[in-house]
Amino acid sequence: MSSETIYVELTDWIKRVHALGTVGELLGWDEQVNLPPGAAEQRAGQQAALAGAQHAAASDPRLGEWLTALEKNVAALSDDQRAVVKNARRDYDRATKLPAEFVRDKAVQSSRGYHAWAKARAADDFAGYAPVLAQNLDFAKREAVYLGWQGREYDYMIDQFDPGMTAAVIGRLFAELKGELVPLVRQIAASPVKPQAGALKGFPVEGQLAFLREVTERIGFDYARGRIDVSLHPFCTGTGSDVRMTTRFSVDEPLRSLFGAIHETGHGMYEQGLPASQLGTALGINAGMAVHESQSRLWENQVGRSRGFWRFFEPRFRALFPTQTAAISSDELYLAINTVAPTLIRVESDEVTYNLHIILRFELEKKLFTGELAVKDLPAAWRAAAQELLGLTPPNDREGVLQDVHWSGGAFGYFPSYCLGNMLAAQLWYRALALRPALEEEFARGDFTWLLGWLRENIHTQGRRFDALTLARRVTGEELSPRHLVRYLRERYGPLYGGKLEG
Amino acid sequence: MSSETIYVELTDWIKRVHALGTVGELLGWDEQVNLPPGAAEQRAGQQAALAGAQHAAASDPRLGEWLTALEKNVAALSDDQRAVVKNARRDYDRATKLPAEFVRDKAVQSSRGYHAWAKARAADDFAGYAPVLAQNLDFAKREAVYLGWQGREYDYMIDQFDPGMTAAVIGRLFAELKGELVPLVRQIAASPVKPQAGALKGFPVEGQLAFLREVTERIGFDYARGRIDVSLHPFCTGTGSDVRMTTRFSVDEPLRSLFGAIHETGHGMYEQGLPASQLGTALGINAGMAVHESQSRLWENQVGRSRGFWRFFEPRFRALFPTQTAAISSDELYLAINTVAPTLIRVESDEVTYNLHIILRFELEKKLFTGELAVKDLPAAWRAAAQELLGLTPPNDREGVLQDVHWSGGAFGYFPSYCLGNMLAAQLWYRALALRPALEEEFARGDFTWLLGWLRENIHTQGRRFDALTLARRVTGEELSPRHLVRYLRERYGPLYGGKLEG
Repeated sequence: MSSETIYVELTDWIKRVHALGTVGELLGWDEQVNLPPGAAEQRAGQQAALAGAQHAAASDPRLGEWLTALEKNVAALSDDQRAVVKNARRDYDRATKLPAEFVRDKAVQSSRGYHAWAKARAADDFAGYAPVLAQNLDFAKREAVYLGWQGREYDYMIDQFDPGMTAAVIGRLFAELKGELVPLVRQIAASPVKPQAGALKGFPVEGQLAFLREVTERIGFDYARGRIDVSLHPFCTGTGSDVRMTTRFSVDEPLRSLFGAIHETGHGMYEQGLPASQLGTALGINAGMAVHESQSRLWENQVGRSRGFWRFFEPRFRALFPTQTAAISSDELYLAINTVAPTLIRVESDEVTYNLHIILRFELEKKLFTGELAVKDLPAAWRAAAQELLGLTPPNDREGVLQDVHWSGGAFGYFPSYCLGNMLAAQLWYRALALRPALEEEFARGDFTWLLGWLRENIHTQGRRFDALTLARRVTGEELSPRHLVRYLRERYGPLYGGKLEG
Repeated sequence: MSSETIYVELTDWIKRVHALGTVGELLGWDEQVNLPPGAAEQRAGQQAALAGAQHAAASDPRLGEWLTALEKNVAALSDDQRAVVKNARRDYDRATKLPAEFVRDKAVQSSRGYHAWAKARAADDFAGYAPVLAQNLDFAKREAVYLGWQGREYDYMIDQFDPGMTAAVIGRLFAELKGELVPLVRQIAASPVKPQAGALKGFPVEGQLAFLREVTERIGFDYARGRIDVSLHPFCTGTGSDVRMTTRFSVDEPLRSLFGAIHETGHGMYEQGLPASQLGTALGINAGMAVHESQSRLWENQVGRSRGFWRFFEPRFRALFPTQTAAISSDELYLAINTVAPTLIRVESDEVTYNLHIILRFELEKKLFTGELAVKDLPAAWRAAAQELLGLTPPNDREGVLQDVHWSGGAFGYFPSYCLGNMLAAQLWYRALALRPALEEEFARGDFTWLLGWLRENIHTQGRRFDALTLARRVTGEELSPRHLVRYLRERYGPLYGGKLEG
């Protein structure tokens, strides 16, 4: 067979494996949105059967043969084809290098970890959870070794979520960011300007849904190729022409569901922008979680919290909720939209302090993997870091080290993506502004098409051709750096909280 | 390995294959209920990938080895295990005896057939469709031969939907039924009693949904293990603890959506009643389409159209829709519920004439397979049979041979199930009445628990241990016969349409 024929066989098969993966995602969505309460066990059986079928397809020996044949003659491949083969090799190794017994044990451990964490969190009992967490860490390290990352175990974990990213790069970026951010947050916290908490009350769900739908459609979510539903925990899943977002409503927190939905819309538009004919190959999947998060954060923060955005949407918001908004001025509304207040809980934090929560987790994760920090010493280390970074000390572990689900299932290395995404979002934003200085005025007219078009061309349609660092360099003309994020936060929050907010 | 060990391996694998099948059903449900309009092609790719994975699992050589080993020592198996092995062999043969090329070509042909039919129906152009239908027939016959049914091709088609059923048995049953039913329909048609068409108008969808939900829950659908949604074509899918029904509403036809939902509830309760731990093996799947239809029809007709049922539900119906029901008397409502009026269209027909529509299709299908009837002569044969059976001649093929979708996709042998189900429903009904003479009085008190319990024990929990004929014999103490259906129709419609309705 010619390289071209083998390449077609390979990509056909990859697309098939990917399609099975998207079926699993749909089952997950259905579980959150539609599943009858008594069907959980049956659904677990369906997911297990599907995972088995997907693994069988992903580890098919023919894949290995096609890859080996193509890798022998890389010169015959185009750049795009090389990117596809490289990513396919990565996936194939992950599907085949782990012993079946290890995979089974890890799945059991992951489930055990989740339940141990839920129990420990409820009882504020880290000591009861520590041995299970230590086992999670051990499984993660062993997995890295199976895949050939001995000595770089934490990098392996990071690479799973962000291909090409390393702890060394993140460490450098985060150290720089931390130096700027900690004083900035202190300044805002010390500001006499305080957003009016709880000023927005009694927003009926139907009205919220109508507004949210208008906003997300206007900024560019394609409802012919996606939908939005209600679930307990908002998320976005699916890809290509079937992207499904979820949200939840609280009548006294209209901004929370709105910004949650704008965030998910950013994720959703990225997935809708991948090339339909290539779904599953490196040309048709997202570049990783950092880039994904850059898309959700850009729309949520740089766009959704901008003056221009609200010049267009505020009148519509007031028209839909005339009584609920009667007592709040435009400036007060804008300040409510841009509330900054350090909190112990990551998922409740604002866009400024959020980054400090991530830096905290990264520093601890990294030390767990190097062995500098023992699992049993995590609570104390967490408290110290929270005090250093946020100026707050958690009164218990529930509001400290036990607050996040991630580690309980073995997802180490995921947290950094959130902050890397924030950095990239700001960097993309200033590049966009340099190319299109009138962007915010366009927003004020309800026109978001240029920005989406630019992201489509430069990010979405690129798939996974490039890793996050390369993509940042190509699109913005410079290396990924935290200084754009710092600049953005100063420019946005300085005028609101008094003064220039120097670092 | 011992027989017991092999048996466990076999059933674990079967359950896994079945779980993949239920995932495919869920995708189908999602397509009708949730799919964004632009996602059809992507969904087709997911279904194809899943079908490929399921086929790979269903034709896994280990299955064949386990089956051969168990079949060599049948004496070591219990009756239940024998039933499981027999059904597993049937499935395995179907998964492995068809050449991959044939399966692929047939899928293409099936899709081609559907589109040719849709086009022909719109244009009332049977001639344009005839060659494609002839190819469908040819594929069906070839498939039967691959599976070893040469000379019994139509029996093969029937057996796909109703394991163990044959054209000879159906022919005998239908001939007897036809002799009774044709004169009965003529008598009703000639009756001066005429239901008031269109007396029920302006029923808001929300109220219909509330009533339908109350009715279906009261008769026994478990909403903790199922749900109901809206789709263009009502159906019921899923099994065990995740059964999903759909319905559709028309403000001027409240009885249509109600009886559609009761019908689907009958299907749904059957699936909810299968033993959860055995889903997929012969102990945990339905016995075939005839038995399935007996469950939907029993609840829809014998129960749902009974006086007792309406003694309980009529006050609730009127309370929900006071203005819409003000002008209609109880007798008029009951007559509307039991309207009989011959029509050319099967899906619009009442429960009496419905059977004649099925007999018509069976007689033609049978002749298509024996070669007594050529595809090109179908329209004329249809017209003659419609005149003989219904006393009506279709003015065109759209209202004749082109009205049903089934044959276009190659589903020959499916139609008889509907009428066999009606027969079995009536036979079960009289057996239930013999055991529990006060049944209708219990309905009048809103109590349907005895009947559901009896069906659970005698039908639902039996799975596919027995074929339809054996099941009928075991549960009712006699061979399946049309005379119960005839008796039921006379008893129900005689008093309504004047006289005893003698055959």
